Amino acid sequence: MAERKGACLVVGVGDGLGSALARAFAEEGLAVCMTRRARHLDDLEALAREIRADGGAAHAFGVDARSEEEMVELFARIERDVGPLEVVIFNIGANVRFPIAETTTRVFHKVWEMACFAGFLTGREAARAMAPRGRGTILFTGATASVRGRDGFAAFAAAKHGLRAIAQSMARELGPQGVHVAHVVIDGAVDGVFIRSNREDVDDLLARDEVLKPADIAQAYVALHRQPRSAWTHELDLRPWRETW
Amino acid sequence: MAERKGACLVVGVGDGLGSALARAFAEEGLAVCMTRRARHLDDLEALAREIRADGGAAHAFGVDARSEEEMVELFARIERDVGPLEVVIFNIGANVRFPIAETTTRVFHKVWEMACFAGFLTGREAARAMAPRGRGTILFTGATASVRGRDGFAAFAAAKHGLRAIAQSMARELGPQGVHVAHVVIDGAVDGVFIRSNREDVDDLLARDEVLKPADIAQAYVALHRQPRSAWTHELDLRPWRETW
Amino acid sequence: MAERKGACLVVGVGDGLGSALARAFAEEGLAVCMTRRARHLDDLEALAREIRADGGAAHAFGVDARSEEEMVELFARIERDVGPLEVVIFNIGANVRFPIAETTTRVFHKVWEMACFAGFLTGREAARAMAPRGRGTILFTGATASVRGRDGFAAFAAAKHGLRAIAQSMARELGPQGVHVAHVVIDGAVDGVFIRSNREDVDDLLARDEVLKPADIAQAYVALHRQPRSAWTHELDLRPWRETW
Amino acid sequence: MAERKGACLVVGVGDGLGSALARAFAEEGLAVCMTRRARHLDDLEALAREIRADGGAAHAFGVDARSEEEMVELFARIERDVGPLEVVIFNIGANVRFPIAETTTRVFHKVWEMACFAGFLTGREAARAMAPRGRGTILFTGATASVRGRDGFAAFAAAKHGLRAIAQSMARELGPQGVHVAHVVIDGAVDGVFIRSNREDVDDLLARDEVLKPADIAQAYVALHRQPRSAWTHELDLRPWRETW
Repeated sequence: MAERKGACLVVGVGDGLGSALARAFAEEGLAVCMTRRARHLDDLEALAREIRADGGAAHAFGVDARSEEEMVELFARIERDVGPLEVVIFNIGANVRFPIAETTTRVFHKVWEMACFAGFLTGREAARAMAPRGRGTILFTGATASVRGRDGFAAFAAAKHGLRAIAQSMARELGPQGVHVAHVVIDGAVDGVFIRSNREDVDDLLARDEVLKPADIAQAYVALHRQPRSAWTHELDLRPWRETW
Repeated sequence: MAERKGACLVVGVGDGLGSALARAFAEEGLAVCMTRRARHLDDLEALAREIRADGGAAHAFGVDARSEEEMVELFARIERDVGPLEVVIFNIGANVRFPIAETTTRVFHKVWEMACFAGFLTGREAARAMAPRGRGTILFTGATASVRGRDGFAAFAAAKHGLRAIAQSMARELGPQGVHVAHVVIDGAVDGVFIRSNREDVDDLLARDEVLKPADIAQAYVALHRQPRSAWTHELDLRPWRETW
Repeated sequence: MAERKGACLVVGVGDGLGSALARAFAEEGLAVCMTRRARHLDDLEALAREIRADGGAAHAFGVDARSEEEMVELFARIERDVGPLEVVIFNIGANVRFPIAETTTRVFHKVWEMACFAGFLTGREAARAMAPRGRGTILFTGATASVRGRDGFAAFAAAKHGLRAIAQSMARELGPQGVHVAHVVIDGAVDGVFIRSNREDVDDLLARDEVLKPADIAQAYVALHRQPRSAWTHELDLRPWRETW
Repeated sequence: MAERKGACLVVGVGDGLGSALARAFAEEGLAVCMTRRARHLDDLEALAREIRADGGAAHAFGVDARSEEEMVELFARIERDVGPLEVVIFNIGANVRFPIAETTTRVFHKVWEMACFAGFLTGREAARAMAPRGRGTILFTGATASVRGRDGFAAFAAAKHGLRAIAQSMARELGPQGVHVAHVVIDGAVDGVFIRSNREDVDDLLARDEVLKPADIAQAYVALHRQPRSAWTHELDLRPWRETW
């Protein structure tokens, strides 16, 4: 059944939002393809099995999203073996914080490679697949740092601002070709391994919906994909109700 | 049945988006209350009858949204006679274009009263009703002029920028009280009387989804209302796929 | 001497920034015309005498900037009696803070009249005087609330957002006619009566340059006026070095 | 004389804006240090001679601004041999336009290295020199693509958005340490080799001030440097009067 609706690729599937995006689009009937670094492939395959057990179609790929060769091969393989890509989501973050004087070139470069360059590769390959067909949805996960610099965030904000610029430029080029490109500004803490290892009150926060729940975020991505082309959204923010500005 | 889900008020229901919003929220099961100037009440009652014929609950009110007295009375009456307001939408525009030197104080004042002051009244009365209950959705219809001034649009852009500032300020105050406030930037031409009287190719544009379709816009408003409070959107844009930036 | 460089009008001259703007443009050699409500005309005339004692040209006018009649008359009188207006500055604020539910229509309307409508009148009359001559500078004083809504600031932010929209719209219309329109976002506390009555540490803050000094702000306005037309600024922010974002 | 006011470094001095910045800060009495790729060092030394002939202090350096080693060495050498850096300006652009599907990883990477990574290196080394002294000015040259993506500009806009994020993050961190960081959005065509080889009407445009003149832009940079710390600007735009939005 899923194959009828085509394939969805989620680049960057860890424990939190990536998993929720994969599950949500699998429930939509798309064959979900998920990537993570090869060393975590076992975890990703376990997730794929869970999705299949729930009746969805899911495939796990160990890929370095910063590698042009691996990414080109990934897109070719999905289009050939799984189906035409209808949805492509770039979901790799790389949140780090350093005073500017202590930001090494290694950190600056790595954050850019993961959070910006890999997003360019993902977006470009998606464009190459979708634009000739005149349809498809490309979604980029952004953050507060996508729209505002902040003390200590030169590396992260530079990468996320760059990703947003890619999304905007692609939206303007590809919209008139029938491809919907959107950028989601996730403006608060998301439930996951990171927050669970840094805060002790996560269960309370979750009980009161005071952190972003991955499944709730994922529904916003699904809603973007479902939008008819007469009324497309290109950017929206998501934040928990109690988050103060 | 509708009464179980409470009431939805749409302030400013003309031929286009307002009607679509009323229909969409009626289909969601809310009892829809619609306002328009008293002199157009017949048209509005005809729309209410159509919605009821389709199984929805709908009420028409002839109200001047710039009158504090009429608005306070409207909210009291709906809360008393129809049900608790779960959704309130401000949807009055006032698009005019004049060179600055030819913009009269009468025009400037009137556009502000309709597009900004009436939005303040609507938002404030909605806040008074919803905040004590700790829930509810307040939605404001914006435009390109809400985020960018433009040659000839001093009056319109001033009013729309002001409305957006109200939405932002209310979102920050009321979010932590459980009330979801969002602003929708409608960034293109909407099908309706205005565009039909100004362009001859509307049918072609509609056939190719090149103008915003009111029913499609309305689905974005419904999606905002349905968002769980762990992941609320406070602003999104809507534009047709072919619209160039 | 001053007459040779023409006239400068500052609308809204109280104790702080307005006075400093008047002094700064008088030092530039312009004949400075200052307005304040008629009931404060004595104070304004004292300031005019001080400026004249320092060798400048200064004129005080008791004017309600919200009155079209008074403003039209003011511009006519200055152009006739003082000289052609080369610089017009709108500098009226109206900072208030109320929860949305407690914001009265009286407050909302009054703040808009003072901070937005009076700015429209000032800008329009300046445009009418300057555009036919193909030169001139029109400057608007903005605030943090001009670019961002905030809890409790629906009325103030609506008016200031509106004023910014007027500045942007006028800049786009009048720039190609040779008139320079710019908006200054004053993003922090300014030394003056307000802050002196609310904080006890003002002298310490001033000694460390941690509040905005009116004379320093005024130099930024002068710099905007001096810009050659090949490189005009339309918006800039001003904040003290220690102010955190 | 110049040494009394310290040193100014301009990274990226070609024919247009870079030269004008060097001349302007030399006239301010700073010892100007200019960089360009080593292969163009002859041109740069000719410019240094001209500035010296006009009474200024100027030094030319052949440097690859993308090389951490070369940049660290450059800053050390200037601080040791020329004087304490009071002004550092990053002025390298890399404007390219390609459809997304035709944007190679080589282009994307190179544009980022030149327009963003080299800016990070420049800013970081400036911060390391200035923050301990509690004073200094760091200026970044931005473009329209710094604030808005556009069809065909994914690579350029990503790099320029990233540079702006660096500037914003550094401003928030370094402001309270006494270092003034600002970003200049150059929002139009600048007179120089590029425009002269692409348009035939440059002389007409210049005669009417319809392109940005490097010397006029440079005055805005000087004005930023002169701002007292009670009222610092962090971003401003520059565009010619006739440029339409």
